[in-house]
Amino acid sequence: MALQQGPKAWLLTIGNEILIGRIVNTNAAWLARKLTFLGFSVERIIVTPDDLEQIGDEIRRALSHGVRLVITTGGLGPTYDDRTLEAVALATNRRLVLNKEAYEMVLAKYSQGGMQMTKEREKMAYMPEGAVALRNSAGTAPGSWLDLGSTIIVSLPGVPKEMEAIFEEEVMPRLKAIAPQLSVVECGFKVVGVPESSLAPFVEEAERKNPGCYVKSHPKGVEVGNPILEIKVLASGNTREEALTKAMSALEAVKVGAQKLGGKISEEGCS
Amino acid sequence: MALQQGPKAWLLTIGNEILIGRIVNTNAAWLARKLTFLGFSVERIIVTPDDLEQIGDEIRRALSHGVRLVITTGGLGPTYDDRTLEAVALATNRRLVLNKEAYEMVLAKYSQGGMQMTKEREKMAYMPEGAVALRNSAGTAPGSWLDLGSTIIVSLPGVPKEMEAIFEEEVMPRLKAIAPQLSVVECGFKVVGVPESSLAPFVEEAERKNPGCYVKSHPKGVEVGNPILEIKVLASGNTREEALTKAMSALEAVKVGAQKLGGKISEEGCS
Repeated sequence: MALQQGPKAWLLTIGNEILIGRIVNTNAAWLARKLTFLGFSVERIIVTPDDLEQIGDEIRRALSHGVRLVITTGGLGPTYDDRTLEAVALATNRRLVLNKEAYEMVLAKYSQGGMQMTKEREKMAYMPEGAVALRNSAGTAPGSWLDLGSTIIVSLPGVPKEMEAIFEEEVMPRLKAIAPQLSVVECGFKVVGVPESSLAPFVEEAERKNPGCYVKSHPKGVEVGNPILEIKVLASGNTREEALTKAMSALEAVKVGAQKLGGKISEEGCS
Repeated sequence: MALQQGPKAWLLTIGNEILIGRIVNTNAAWLARKLTFLGFSVERIIVTPDDLEQIGDEIRRALSHGVRLVITTGGLGPTYDDRTLEAVALATNRRLVLNKEAYEMVLAKYSQGGMQMTKEREKMAYMPEGAVALRNSAGTAPGSWLDLGSTIIVSLPGVPKEMEAIFEEEVMPRLKAIAPQLSVVECGFKVVGVPESSLAPFVEEAERKNPGCYVKSHPKGVEVGNPILEIKVLASGNTREEALTKAMSALEAVKVGAQKLGGKISEEGCS
């Protein structure tokens, strides 16, 4: 387990609908992928209820762990249980204030539709003092970017298309300025005919002998009877070439083992 | 946010592959659904790296929160980074020992395939002292059931079909004996033409006036322009009838509001 040692990031997914299994947490997976390839090391994904104290506890815990970046999703909407930014304010000892830019964004959205401002709509413009409002091109609730110095807390809506739009348009450019200038690649292949337990020593050796690579076998068939494995290597380097060289070296070591054990290799490639 | 107040459960998903966004955490959603309908209140889903200390920390934290049930997924396999049961042992101050029943299960699986026992295969039979081995009908690594008295820690493999098989066949019957004898239902409808921010006061009131119900609006369209909402109510009671009555009462309150605002209702139903 030698993932790149980039700045630590925690993802905080807020919403009962995940905890009751109504919805699969695709937001966290999407963000984790983006952050990993930006060079961040995602150390935790935490799902909490829409509960002020519990959200606040998890944010404080992230701060006490020296996390560089916390991204929350969910709880920015107009309903009674959307309390994420109140919790961020609470956990960071800031006041929750009407953010002028956020207010203008919300007002403009509803004005376009010929709709008045109401208490529920105005609610979406309240942010922790000092936060920067992030424009939501796909919906109404703005995101929030709160820079505390050592930690940045970014809060995004839970609706995937809104979360993704704000991330791509508003968060990504800001993160690029603080992300390590690393290239991250993922390479892999499929091997048929070798049980995971037989290949295990080769996977371990590949990992050990290739620092900066994360080597993993994913069983996709039946260990005893019809073994199919996906081998994946994640590697980072200062250039894409360096990362690729590392990844290929680790991958080759596993491949040699798989072939020695009579495995059939296919689907080799990098992303 | 008035979910049923059943015994608290935490889900601990172990695996770097989730943290780098290679895989979406469907296991947690599947388990959360099962536990919710058994009457448990899933309070956290936490994803940690394959790291002994970090897994141990999260288990200790669950214990300190008075959680009745912790279910871990992942990290039971034969590879170097599969260290979940070592972490459970560490966090509960137990020795990691060769579990006789688990050993027999693993041995039987490989023997069927004409394969010898190796260090990597034997590894899957090591469990915290006092754990009960859970048969894995869909793979090789047995699950583990560790009853600490006030908390039960269940550890399942990360491969979904194995996790699901052990849960259905081995965990479910044991949980039914300790689960609250509650009926849980989910009812909902779709409403077109009403922005979430307009319906919000009705959702809040429905929630407030119907204790034991969790009422939620999920935006599926565009708030300004083409608003589509899914309204969902989760309710529990001593009988299915009681739960349904509660759910329908909350749902009706939202429906009246939605119709007052000119919304078109469809897809009414319960599960």
